[in-house]
Amino acid sequence: MYRDRLPLFPDTVALRPGQNGSPSLHVGGCDLNRLAAEWSTPLYIYDLQTIDSAVQAYQDALSRHYPGPAGITYAGKASLNLAMARLMAAHGLLLDCTGVGEMHIARAAGVPPAQLLMHGVNKSQADLQAGLAHAGTLVVDNPPELERIAQLASARGSAPALWLRVRPGYAVDTHHFRQTGQHDSKFGMDADQCVDAIAFCQRNDLPVTGLHFHQGSHFHAAEQVLPALDMVCELMGRLQRQLNWWPQVLSPGGGWGVVYHEADLPHRPVEEYVATVAAALAEKLSPYALPLPRLQVEPGRSLVARAGIAIYRVGTVKRAGGRRWLLLDGGMADNIRPALYRARYSALPVTDPLSRAPISENAWLAGPYCESGDLLIEDLPLPEIKSGELLAVPVSGAYQLMMASNYNGALRPAVVMLRDACAQLAQRRETVEDLLLRDIV
Amino acid sequence: MYRDRLPLFPDTVALRPGQNGSPSLHVGGCDLNRLAAEWSTPLYIYDLQTIDSAVQAYQDALSRHYPGPAGITYAGKASLNLAMARLMAAHGLLLDCTGVGEMHIARAAGVPPAQLLMHGVNKSQADLQAGLAHAGTLVVDNPPELERIAQLASARGSAPALWLRVRPGYAVDTHHFRQTGQHDSKFGMDADQCVDAIAFCQRNDLPVTGLHFHQGSHFHAAEQVLPALDMVCELMGRLQRQLNWWPQVLSPGGGWGVVYHEADLPHRPVEEYVATVAAALAEKLSPYALPLPRLQVEPGRSLVARAGIAIYRVGTVKRAGGRRWLLLDGGMADNIRPALYRARYSALPVTDPLSRAPISENAWLAGPYCESGDLLIEDLPLPEIKSGELLAVPVSGAYQLMMASNYNGALRPAVVMLRDACAQLAQRRETVEDLLLRDIV
Repeated sequence: MYRDRLPLFPDTVALRPGQNGSPSLHVGGCDLNRLAAEWSTPLYIYDLQTIDSAVQAYQDALSRHYPGPAGITYAGKASLNLAMARLMAAHGLLLDCTGVGEMHIARAAGVPPAQLLMHGVNKSQADLQAGLAHAGTLVVDNPPELERIAQLASARGSAPALWLRVRPGYAVDTHHFRQTGQHDSKFGMDADQCVDAIAFCQRNDLPVTGLHFHQGSHFHAAEQVLPALDMVCELMGRLQRQLNWWPQVLSPGGGWGVVYHEADLPHRPVEEYVATVAAALAEKLSPYALPLPRLQVEPGRSLVARAGIAIYRVGTVKRAGGRRWLLLDGGMADNIRPALYRARYSALPVTDPLSRAPISENAWLAGPYCESGDLLIEDLPLPEIKSGELLAVPVSGAYQLMMASNYNGALRPAVVMLRDACAQLAQRRETVEDLLLRDIV
Repeated sequence: MYRDRLPLFPDTVALRPGQNGSPSLHVGGCDLNRLAAEWSTPLYIYDLQTIDSAVQAYQDALSRHYPGPAGITYAGKASLNLAMARLMAAHGLLLDCTGVGEMHIARAAGVPPAQLLMHGVNKSQADLQAGLAHAGTLVVDNPPELERIAQLASARGSAPALWLRVRPGYAVDTHHFRQTGQHDSKFGMDADQCVDAIAFCQRNDLPVTGLHFHQGSHFHAAEQVLPALDMVCELMGRLQRQLNWWPQVLSPGGGWGVVYHEADLPHRPVEEYVATVAAALAEKLSPYALPLPRLQVEPGRSLVARAGIAIYRVGTVKRAGGRRWLLLDGGMADNIRPALYRARYSALPVTDPLSRAPISENAWLAGPYCESGDLLIEDLPLPEIKSGELLAVPVSGAYQLMMASNYNGALRPAVVMLRDACAQLAQRRETVEDLLLRDIV
């Protein structure tokens, strides 16, 4: 029964004899037991080959289904550090940075300006200054922001390419925290505001080249993009007629979902999503005798989530009120998604994961923090697990560490990148000394 | 109407002419406008006099209502930094640390071992070693942990005072994430396990001196502690009869709630809670001709929440789908409680907060992060607010910064302590360079 969980793991997952001869989970050619021994737990690992394949799947789907030019922006908010920024830049992706913090990481990684894109619903003056100075593309959220950009650009004598964020009035079906396209959303501009904004850019000689929208994150039905795409294509027609403006780039955002639990397998292929968007866009724009805009998709989660694994060590095993508790050395401080979105994860023991006899009592996996919301996985079938064992939680590559905290004095985990049996530390584990770095003595 | 919100603010809140002559919110004798100008926003401030009064209220209530000895443990998880640890230690409180991270902060603050207490449901070996070496009191969560403590204590030749964490089987009425006392909770030991644990301590000559329980955090009905208190008093009787053991200390945990929104005012006094617990305990134990144990309450939120204010600057003001959006420079990265617990906050503008004409359109306050869950306050009556204004969100002193993240590259805010018109920086704002401290170049 546990074999059903293997597809949740990175492409390179394999069972090979570990140090004590028992079959042991390997990823990227590395034994998870050895990684945990070297870098301690909780530990986050990324299999880079899985990310490569995910990028390739997007590229293949775009070139197969879209007759015009196409590109990919990586939504850095899903998982960003120097190593990740470099990997995405090496793949030729644009890197979406929200504000000056992520921009600093991307620049430190050496991502060239042409590949830097800045998003943000409420950009500070510092964000805008960084965007104008260092980003190749700046996505404009609202009219007052556009006026501030015009002032800064006028003072600088230059501006990056501007895209307008359209609020299409349609969200996708996902947790309401992750819906962004609806009419009353805080994000973007409606059609009339977009028309005014393009006219403003034309009057002020600002290089506005694209339209962007995003309806929400972690959805699974590709056709949910279509009403918003309709709206945006209609807006394009209006902009063409009224202002003789036509976008060089159209970004339908990202948000394609992943599978966190075996009950939701199989994975729906990225191609399904890209093909739906690409075909609809090409068809809707065919009446215009104008070049197809570059179709610039913006995935985050679907590029990195399945490449990542969180490895925890089981501490206390207890039975309470009919529940079997496995208490781990990490939890809501490194992964708040179960508490925040009721996300449902799965797990496997690192050693001998598949062949142990199941026991009738399901397990409840929780972290060490003083809060019942620190519950990582509820009611999961698992064999008998002893204190000291390692558990691997797959699909941990997105929106976990980026929301990590020091709650209860938790130290944020190390991050290790795996490729071809080589493991490289990308971020060291936090130390207790780090907890005091900002304190005034 | 906005005047109803003033009781949510610290004791020292006052309206005085600010820099431009308009009435301006002052706390601890300091103009919030000036604090924001000096330390930028988002900014967290604490009024120390409000904390002093909250401590005093507990002390007064304990001495008025409990005929035996009494003490207070501050639950550091609510808000901990060097300055806060020093303040609580100076008040003579014990300081509860969860694990080695919080223990490091407390020790760096110079809190003496006798005032250090360690909690934790799944203590690592490093936690236990730190607890044995540096804490005056160690709260034992479960039997295997007790065995590990015995081994370490035997090797060291010494042990701190041990208290057992009892799982009473009763939670209080609060968000289920914060319920901890129920039968199937991950925390603590049931009665039989406690009896075995005391016997184990007696056999192994371990200094077990207390019992602790905690039913959950942020509850408002004092009588909800009574069933658990009954259970624990019964357990005490059993321990006395079977093992001739009687606790020197009984800690009924903490969790007394606070009010976050004016609709829930007035505040229910701490005395109501302490009196209920103290009277019930004294009465239940009166049949025993034994000394009353020290009643050691363990508040966190009710000591610090109302002392804290989060100050944000409004950036974009937009209307979308009938909603008035005020977009702030902070949100879910520094305060995840609205998203995590559906916590409902209030706010006032810092300048001229009370006398401006209300407008019919309520405000939706959100942060700058790329997520609709980044919604700080829904549907709040506020006057017309302009971009650039400061807003003060009261009752921000607990469980906000401790769960803060760097999501979207957010920089964690500065923390300033206020007393007698003097403002002292306790923690500096994070910098973009800090975001890369753990990255391997």
